[in-house]
Amino acid sequence: MPAAWVFPLSADPPYFGVCVTKKRHTYSLIRKRKAFGINTAGPRMKKLIGQAGTTTGSKVDKFSQFKIPKEYGQLRVPLLKNSPVSIECRLVKEIEMGDHILLVGEVVGAVQRKKAKGIYQSEGSKLVEF
Amino acid sequence: MPAAWVFPLSADPPYFGVCVTKKRHTYSLIRKRKAFGINTAGPRMKKLIGQAGTTTGSKVDKFSQFKIPKEYGQLRVPLLKNSPVSIECRLVKEIEMGDHILLVGEVVGAVQRKKAKGIYQSEGSKLVEF
Repeated sequence: MPAAWVFPLSADPPYFGVCVTKKRHTYSLIRKRKAFGINTAGPRMKKLIGQAGTTTGSKVDKFSQFKIPKEYGQLRVPLLKNSPVSIECRLVKEIEMGDHILLVGEVVGAVQRKKAKGIYQSEGSKLVEF
Repeated sequence: MPAAWVFPLSADPPYFGVCVTKKRHTYSLIRKRKAFGINTAGPRMKKLIGQAGTTTGSKVDKFSQFKIPKEYGQLRVPLLKNSPVSIECRLVKEIEMGDHILLVGEVVGAVQRKKAKGIYQSEGSKLVEF
């Protein structure tokens, strides 16, 4: 799923956090697999973000539906081959955080495929390059 | 202190997280006051970020040293008057996170003073506008 609330939490050991609501299909997948992948989004992925953000993996295989090239890291979670950077995390902690849940992952692998501008979400659904 | 690891954690109630190392003077101030302010940084604050990021409040009164205009919100933490947006938070939780500590704050007030571009930290100490 496209997620805006993704951030570093520790340098050594390297931790990243992802904050989602429990109703997300992604949440149940991460709990099951005890792992997750973070894929940074480059400007060329704007259309895909809109598509993947308005469908749920509980009903649609997004990789097949939107023809998303993928590969697998050592934790067997799918990583996006078109993403500039992918980070693979082992789930180490879940923390209730108001109406969201913070999933803390320890980085076990990372790949930088290319340099790219980033994009961020602004005013609801607008995607802005930086 | 200038901090890059600042992010939303919950929408309702509204929580923000700040992740710092315990050795930071800022950390001891937040523990004492049980509150903190988040001040977004606009492009005009680049110089100040460099100045404030290379001095410690344990030795220098940064507000006075760097002539930073401030005002106080309801929790009596100083907010930066030149910041485009300031958010005032009551500390609700501290969570050990590897070599950092995650300070979770509930938003009790926010003020948008002007619209401005944001800046982000890149490659160590480079500040890039977006």
